[in-house]
Amino acid sequence: MKKINRRKFNASLALGMGTVMTSPLACATAISPQKKLGVALVGLGSYSEYQLAPALLETAHCYLAAIVTGTPAKEKIWAEKYNLPSTHIYNYENFDSIANNKEVDIVYVVLPNSMHADFSIRAAKAGKHVICEKPMAVSVEECDAIINACEKAKVKLSVGYRLHSEPYTQEIKKMVKEKYYGEVRYVAADAAYFSNSHPNQWRLDRKLSGGGALMNMGVYSIQSAIYGSGQNPVSVIAQEFSTRPQYFKDTDETITAQFEFPNGAMGSIFTSHNVNMNRSHTAFEKGWVALNPANNYGPLAGHTSDGKVLNFPHESQQKLQMDDFAKHILFGSENLVPGEMGKRDMIIIEAIYKSIQEGGKKIPLDLGMMGIV
Amino acid sequence: MKKINRRKFNASLALGMGTVMTSPLACATAISPQKKLGVALVGLGSYSEYQLAPALLETAHCYLAAIVTGTPAKEKIWAEKYNLPSTHIYNYENFDSIANNKEVDIVYVVLPNSMHADFSIRAAKAGKHVICEKPMAVSVEECDAIINACEKAKVKLSVGYRLHSEPYTQEIKKMVKEKYYGEVRYVAADAAYFSNSHPNQWRLDRKLSGGGALMNMGVYSIQSAIYGSGQNPVSVIAQEFSTRPQYFKDTDETITAQFEFPNGAMGSIFTSHNVNMNRSHTAFEKGWVALNPANNYGPLAGHTSDGKVLNFPHESQQKLQMDDFAKHILFGSENLVPGEMGKRDMIIIEAIYKSIQEGGKKIPLDLGMMGIV
Repeated sequence: MKKINRRKFNASLALGMGTVMTSPLACATAISPQKKLGVALVGLGSYSEYQLAPALLETAHCYLAAIVTGTPAKEKIWAEKYNLPSTHIYNYENFDSIANNKEVDIVYVVLPNSMHADFSIRAAKAGKHVICEKPMAVSVEECDAIINACEKAKVKLSVGYRLHSEPYTQEIKKMVKEKYYGEVRYVAADAAYFSNSHPNQWRLDRKLSGGGALMNMGVYSIQSAIYGSGQNPVSVIAQEFSTRPQYFKDTDETITAQFEFPNGAMGSIFTSHNVNMNRSHTAFEKGWVALNPANNYGPLAGHTSDGKVLNFPHESQQKLQMDDFAKHILFGSENLVPGEMGKRDMIIIEAIYKSIQEGGKKIPLDLGMMGIV
Repeated sequence: MKKINRRKFNASLALGMGTVMTSPLACATAISPQKKLGVALVGLGSYSEYQLAPALLETAHCYLAAIVTGTPAKEKIWAEKYNLPSTHIYNYENFDSIANNKEVDIVYVVLPNSMHADFSIRAAKAGKHVICEKPMAVSVEECDAIINACEKAKVKLSVGYRLHSEPYTQEIKKMVKEKYYGEVRYVAADAAYFSNSHPNQWRLDRKLSGGGALMNMGVYSIQSAIYGSGQNPVSVIAQEFSTRPQYFKDTDETITAQFEFPNGAMGSIFTSHNVNMNRSHTAFEKGWVALNPANNYGPLAGHTSDGKVLNFPHESQQKLQMDDFAKHILFGSENLVPGEMGKRDMIIIEAIYKSIQEGGKKIPLDLGMMGIV
């Protein structure tokens, strides 16, 4: 309880009620470790184990406060490693009682895609802020349900798009916004990896994943196309290809799609579980900027048509992401990845699947500036 | 006449009739400048003026022997600049009399696309070897007519794909052939430039060009996809996009297409007259190699997934190309760009236009190893 009280005191300062410190940055540096927000990780798969939990040891504004797991064997290991009391360890049956744990401020849902909506909504109902891993859900309808639940519960919502906190990605967004080489005319993004292990992994099971490459790496290519152009697409055409149908029995292996943007620019994306690809390219009127890799855990790398090499210090992307969300909650700074960004991408994903089902028909999109941050 | 006699003597040596020098390379170094083949440029547009003619001052095995132009004003300028006697200057009316000019060995057709077939066939009938600028023609039917005419006249035929003589491109072909990083799984190629001048240029007139971006830069992206995978595609799906229909009234502005290759690899190409793009990427099982630029006049640039930077000395690509064709004629070395390669690409172009006309339908291709060198 002490922790929460101190945190609340500082948050009030940050919101301008203090007399001296009015800048969020000044506030952030003034916050002692005790004022950190508590994060509960729901689902202890490899992303939690190797990325999120280690990042939470480095975060300035949040820390690992609790875990939710369906695998009893993991409880002891995590409890020891992260010094978690048994009262901060939940399973999927007693998850809702997390409402009573005042040290948990944020619930980060890191489950298979089809479980995102259920646990995000239950987290909101428990009065916790929510980070939902990407893709936000397996349908637009589910995205709406999450957004509505968070609004009703008056909790903050974000989607696990870590790259919006990542410096190379922020540089691309800045160059696009500032028309560094003029108007954007074309953006290309390939996000793919070769999958050949664990034929019973959940990503290959449509009931759990909601889809294949598109629902996994495809989200990155959609994201790259949008922040690489600074606009939402007004139409999409898509194609699906399959090389190993015996392995990808139930989910899409390779998908290509083409976007039209409001300013006349074109976008082209490629996503696959059959090849390693990780790059983005924005072609402006008078030059270009490219990232390769563009969306792995980093460090990313990039260069421009006039020979500039992008070079930013590497930090854990997940650390930056969770701290940015914590700062949004604590200090009212911008939510870099609001729920509507996740919903927008799900609208595009559904349009891509629809185009494929209809033999490559062009699907119009009416997104306006939805989710553009 | 002396020139021709000396050349013929050396060519005989190269074909194994000499007693000492049996290697084409040894022969090539032994040939004096006088044994060069004479080239006639048909059409004195910017490509002839700024690329081919200057390159013919550097070539070791051929030289500019004649010109064919419909613009009388150009005759004197070129005659002076390249020391051409008036008997070596032709127009489109008296072109066929080039048959009587023994100093012309090769006719290089650099006219608008719709005139390629006519002048290539007439050159063959005049007994001259033929280089036909890309695209080979405006239909597969015309490609067949050119190939047949050259076979009938027993003259050699090549298409103006200069990159097959270019070292970066040759390195890509070698890496693919040697499976440098394993099997190819994906190849992407974007070839495009922004066109905004001369609304009455022939490229915007379908009667002369046969098509827009696809017939121009698109040929490079098709070429990149094929030598970047080492295979011919077995199917293609294509899409067309338009941003400036008032400028591109008659020809395609932007086209994307997706290929399937026999080994299960995918290819994705982008071509446009609405943006500058010039890159290729081959993703193997265990690494990748990328060129950017990939198909301009050079120097090209490239690097690999494990940090190797491709670095080859720059020479005029057109010089290398014309010398390679001259060596094919003189010494029987391989024809790096046989006519059937140009025909194959025209089959693919026609399939792309067909797919677009049919709303993005997948068009099967039955090319085997046609044109793969």
